[in-house]
Parts: sequence; C-alpha cells; structure tokens
Amino acid sequence: MTIAANDPTFTSWVNVPENSDFPIQNLPFGIIKVENEAPRVASRIGDYAIDLKALSVLGYTENLPFSLSDFDASTLNSMMMKGKDGTRKLRDRLSKLFNAESVDLKSKQHHVDQVLIPMAQVEMLMPIDVRDYTDFYSSEQHAYNVGCLFRDPENALMPNWKHIPVGYHGRASSIIVSGQDIYRPKGQKKPPTADVPIFGQSNLLDFELETVFFTFQGKPLGDTISTKEAEDYIFGMALLNDWSARDIQGWEYVPLGPFLGKSFASSVSPWIVTIDALEPFRVAGPTQDNPKVLPYLEYSGNKHIDINLDVIIQPENGEENLVGKSNYRHMYWNMNQQLAHHTVNGCNINCGDAMGSGTISGPEIGMYGSMLEISWKGTKPFQMSDGTERKFINDGDTVIMRGYSKKDGVRVGFGEVSTKVLPTK
Amino acid sequence: MTIAANDPTFTSWVNVPENSDFPIQNLPFGIIKVENEAPRVASRIGDYAIDLKALSVLGYTENLPFSLSDFDASTLNSMMMKGKDGTRKLRDRLSKLFNAESVDLKSKQHHVDQVLIPMAQVEMLMPIDVRDYTDFYSSEQHAYNVGCLFRDPENALMPNWKHIPVGYHGRASSIIVSGQDIYRPKGQKKPPTADVPIFGQSNLLDFELETVFFTFQGKPLGDTISTKEAEDYIFGMALLNDWSARDIQGWEYVPLGPFLGKSFASSVSPWIVTIDALEPFRVAGPTQDNPKVLPYLEYSGNKHIDINLDVIIQPENGEENLVGKSNYRHMYWNMNQQLAHHTVNGCNINCGDAMGSGTISGPEIGMYGSMLEISWKGTKPFQMSDGTERKFINDGDTVIMRGYSKKDGVRVGFGEVSTKVLPTK
Repeated sequence: MTIAANDPTFTSWVNVPENSDFPIQNLPFGIIKVENEAPRVASRIGDYAIDLKALSVLGYTENLPFSLSDFDASTLNSMMMKGKDGTRKLRDRLSKLFNAESVDLKSKQHHVDQVLIPMAQVEMLMPIDVRDYTDFYSSEQHAYNVGCLFRDPENALMPNWKHIPVGYHGRASSIIVSGQDIYRPKGQKKPPTADVPIFGQSNLLDFELETVFFTFQGKPLGDTISTKEAEDYIFGMALLNDWSARDIQGWEYVPLGPFLGKSFASSVSPWIVTIDALEPFRVAGPTQDNPKVLPYLEYSGNKHIDINLDVIIQPENGEENLVGKSNYRHMYWNMNQQLAHHTVNGCNINCGDAMGSGTISGPEIGMYGSMLEISWKGTKPFQMSDGTERKFINDGDTVIMRGYSKKDGVRVGFGEVSTKVLPTK
Repeated sequence: MTIAANDPTFTSWVNVPENSDFPIQNLPFGIIKVENEAPRVASRIGDYAIDLKALSVLGYTENLPFSLSDFDASTLNSMMMKGKDGTRKLRDRLSKLFNAESVDLKSKQHHVDQVLIPMAQVEMLMPIDVRDYTDFYSSEQHAYNVGCLFRDPENALMPNWKHIPVGYHGRASSIIVSGQDIYRPKGQKKPPTADVPIFGQSNLLDFELETVFFTFQGKPLGDTISTKEAEDYIFGMALLNDWSARDIQGWEYVPLGPFLGKSFASSVSPWIVTIDALEPFRVAGPTQDNPKVLPYLEYSGNKHIDINLDVIIQPENGEENLVGKSNYRHMYWNMNQQLAHHTVNGCNINCGDAMGSGTISGPEIGMYGSMLEISWKGTKPFQMSDGTERKFINDGDTVIMRGYSKKDGVRVGFGEVSTKVLPTK
C-alpha cells in the first residue's frame, strides 16, 4: 500500500531537528493545552505542535469530512469517528501544507504564528477517552520467561499460547498520560513465608514495556472483523507502561486473572502515531506453523512492525539508566490477529478502545520488558550507574519508555511515556 | 437510615396492580423510547412510565439540582452525575407527587396525561452508558460448586477466596438491555478428546444469574473508598445475565481469566432500582471469621439484601420452565466490600461503572444460578415441561431472570431481563 504522506523524500519548511521523532512523515495526533485555553486537537512536526483548531478556523481543512467541533475537543474521539478514510485525508492534508514545496500556509506568517506552537509552551493531555481496554500477552519471549520463573522451562508456555492471542480485559479508568505521577499502590498480598495474607504497600512494583493501539468504531454486536479487515479499524499506536504490582497480582490472579495488581495505573505516550505512518516499517513476523494457526488467525503480507523500544529508570535527581532494549517486531501475534481474535465471538469494538500488546521482550538478556524478567524475579538485581541496584521500582524513580522506527533515513517515533512513582498515599 | 420515600404505609393515586414490582416505594430509573420520539429519562409506577422530561418541562422538578438536559437524555449518566444527594432528592420528589395524599399533579389531568405513559407504549433502552465493567465472584456456593466440578470438594475454594472478593474486568461494550436477542457465539475450543483446538460455535452456552450495581462518580486516582463510604458511591442495582460460553472459556482462561467466553454479551434489566429503595430489605450477611477478613474489608450493620431471584428457560413457542431459585442474600461478599476492595489500590471509579455480583447460587439443589451447576457439567440434564431436556442453552431458548424484595407487605422488584438466543450468525 502506498500512502502519499509517507514519501521518504519529503521535507518540510518547518525546521525538524536531526533524530526528531516527528518529521513530516509522522504527523501524529494528540490533545494539547496551552496556558488557560481549552484543550484542542493537534498534530506535531519537529518541536512544534500544529493546532488543528486554528488550522480549521483559518480554512485549511476545507473539503475534509471534519467540523470545527472535531478539533475544538478535549479528546480525539470525535475526530476518530470519521474513520480510516477521514483521518487519512486529514494527515495527507497536513503533509501537503507542511511540505517544503508548499507555500499556501508558509507564505502567511500571521497564520503560521497561530498554527505552530512551540512544544515548550504546550501541555499534553490524555489523547483519547478510552472505552474498553484489553491487554494481550503476545510476546513469546515474555510468556516464556514468565513461564520459566513461575513454572519450569519445559512447560513454560501454556498449551493454548500458540493457538490464541491470549488476552484479558484491563481497567480503562486508570489509564493516564505521560507526565502524571502515580502513587505506589497498597493491597492484599501473601508473602511466600506467611500463613495468612497481609495488607500493605506493594514492594514489587514493576513496569511492563508495551505498545497500545486504539480503534475506530467497529461493527455491530455479533459481527466479526477479519485479519484482512483489521487495519481499517485501527487508528494508531502509542507506548504503554502497564504498571504491575507483582505481590498483589500473585495473590489475587488465580483463577480470574490480573485485577488490582494492574488497575492502579497504566501510562500512555501522548501522541498517537497513525498506522499509516508506520506502514513503511512493516516486517515479516515469525512463522506460525508449529502449531499452524486456525484459519481465522491466518494473514498475508508483512504485518509486524520494526519499532525500537527502550525502557529507562531515572532515580530522583539522578541520571537515566537504560535497563531494556526491545523491539515490537518480536511479537508472536500481530495487531490484525489480535483484533480478529477479539471479535471472532461477535464482541463489538467502539471508537477509542485501547488494546495493549503485552510486555514485549526480545530473545536475549538486555532485551527484557519488565523488572520481573530483568532481575529474574529479584535474583539478579540491576546495577544502576549511581551504585544502587534495582530488583523492582523504588519510590522517586521515574520510568521512561521511548520508541521509534527508522528506515531509508526516515525516523518516525512516539516520543516518550514518562511516569514518576510517589510514595504510597 | 430512614428514607422518607420508603414508608411502607404510602400508597399512590396511580393504580398499582397487586404483586407489581413497581409500587410507590420503588421508583426506579430507566430510559424510555416512545414511538419516534427521542429517548428520555423515566421512572415507573405500576404499569406506567413516569416521563421525567415532561415532569421537568411542566415545572415539577423545580428546586432540585437537575436541568432539563439531565432528563432529555439517552442515558442516565448525566442525571447520575448529581450523585447520591441529588438522585435521592429526585426520588423523594416523585414519592411526594405520586402519593395518594398529594393533589399537585393528580389534580391536573392534562399534566398527568403527558407524564404517565402506559408501559405497553414504551420501549426500554439500555439505561446507562457503562464505562468500566467489573464482575465479581462473590457467592460461596457458586465458587464451591465450580471448584467441585473442576477440582475436588476438598479443595473447592481457592486459597484466596475467603480473603478477597475475587473479581475481574469484563467487557463493557457488549452489555445489552433486556429484549435484545443474542447470537450463539463462535470461537476456539479444545474438546477433552481432541489433540488440537478447533473452531466452531459454542455448544456449551450458559447463563449466569447475577445482579449488577452502577456507581456514581468516584474519587481521583490514588484515593480509596472505605466500606463505610461505599453506599455514597452506589446508585442502584439491576439484574444481570452474564452469558458464558463454557467451551470457549475453558480453553482460553488460563492464566489471564475469562475473555471471549464472556465478551459476546451480558444482558441487564432496564430499570435501575436505587440502593435507597432496597434499604428496607437489608439482612445480615454470613459471619466472616474463619478466616477473619482484613480490616479494610470489615463493615458494620446489615449490608446484604434479601432479593428473591428466579431464572427461567422458555423454549421457542413454549412455556416458562423455572430452573433456579436463588437469593442475593446468599452472597459471601457484599457491595460495600466489593467497592472497598476495588479501590483499595487507588483505582478510580467513574459515573456509570458496572459491577456484577458473580453467579449467585443458594446452598441447595434448585437454587443454582448457571446451567453448569444445574446440570452438574452436563451429567444431570434438566427435565423441561415439554419433554425435552437441557444441559446448556439451545437456539431459540429465551432466558428470563426476575427478582424482587418483599417485606411488611411492600414488594420492590426489578422486572426482568429476558434474552433470546439466535443461531450462530
């Protein structure tokens, strides 16, 4: 599929620093707040937010299927209701307006001044009113590592794991945007040596390095979405830190799955990178013939994506420590398969549903996406540059995740999701 | 707590048939649709809907904290944003207006004609825009039965079951209102005799007899709601049929819990009965001292409720077969404990969250709330009045659940949730 706005030869009349995640080939969507003004929809290029409300007021979104209220909004949901076709046209329009060859906007400096806002003046808000949140468990190495830690290497993967993209319903209310602090959660847990459970703060607070995709409005209840149709229903992706309290999770999760061990917070990066913008970075996934997947999970073409993922711990007033380097291409199940599986029983999806990848771990040490794996359940503490060590996350630590794709000299990135952990409230 | 509108001596100038679920002591809330008019908020008395939009337009809601738009709405959420205090005042106002002693409304027949709509002319819509949906697992007999069926009677309850109100996140998008048909779901399953999973329609389609409560807006992320505060955040209850495909569920649910085995549909009754209206039917719950619960789960007073629950199978063109008679008082964990547990890690709740009880089974045969238990995993088919038998639910069957409380001659009920099963789409 050729998408005009992805042309790697394009440059913009807006200065884009080298190694920026936001060249003209990206043009993601988010919600900005500037001083005391009402939140509104924006895109981004280089170190500037593109104010889509201003762009619309000034007439630059004419003949597109959007009204001003779609941009004069505190979430992207109204805009997303225009679906794949509408949002693709909008990104194409932005690509044309900001192309180095175009003078329509560039030539009117009083318009440029209204439309481009330096990111230093911008606060990023939660971009989407998330309806249902589903989290998958689709990285083989992560599932294998967890299986080794809690069972044994011979039976690390559950019997169903290579047959179905295992997933579960998560808590939507506590999804927050990068920059919002979290409190260390309290809860019930049962230490291995205790006879009875106790109540207290989680001592095994962990991150999970994930991505998340957000959906357009789906079909009515009872209908299915095939792997072939899936991309028509996927708006874009962000980085996701699926916070986990391992001690709370361990005591509660049998038999109905994770609950309070996860529901205290999940953090997302503020810019939604469209699936269209990621199209040039598609790669082949693993072969799935041992076992062969059922026909409804088969797909054709390259449906995985090469996205470099870093996870970093920064102690209070300290420097960044890179603790894991992974890549979205390590997924066993891709988004098409996840969405096809999710709807195969007739389950309906809404505009703004969030679907997490599950922790993404690569095949080697150093590529793991959670402290549970990095510290191997606390047995191999990570050595920090300040001389301390980490088995899990300390109060005052900030966990930062960054991600980007790069090919043919074009880098399309997500920015970061950064969350500081405060002591228990 | 004394709530004026609950006075058992009250009668109404509106005729209320004997054994109606909707006397003047109930006054539930729902969303009605009349012919081609826009949906709006209503209450109910006897066989009439009370049009709250009309009541508001005519000036009968003056000095209450509501605007017309709260009633001229397709969901109750806007009205519910006024919280416990607002909705209690509204119910009190309705109680006064429809009291046999009151002539304010009764004396104006042209107003009465606009406000009271015979239920035969009314279509009931989904009452609440459900945000997050949580389902608990709080009936001891149900958990014990399931444990016996899948493990053994000696270890039927999981070690955590009497320490935490076990629950999981469910799918909100597929919650539907009574009267909407469902399609038998398809999915992946692995029959006990098969080497590999297969794809096909669920052959073990089941209901779960539950209630559900809906929340007001809660506190910010990071805060907790105690068992003592819980009722301030609970609007009301409805009946819930948590549809389950046992074969799909069985193959998928380890280790992350139920997913597609549940997410194809959950049906609710259309009238939300306020917690206030159920207050007279409070009863003591089971003692919880073996083991003793942790302090954050302790509560005082009678926090369980005596609600009779019936579940019925009606074959296509056939008669009703009562297959189970249970009672909400059989719950081990009450709503106060469920909500306190849900928020103890700082998880926030929103206006319109739904929280299911879990299947409610009583202590004797005949009191079970699912076909899994009634047919004891298919080994004891239920004998229907037409000579057929049921292990699980057939195409064409309608499953009906009804519930009511009764005390001192006052009956406060829920009406019913009724859902027909259509063949796989």
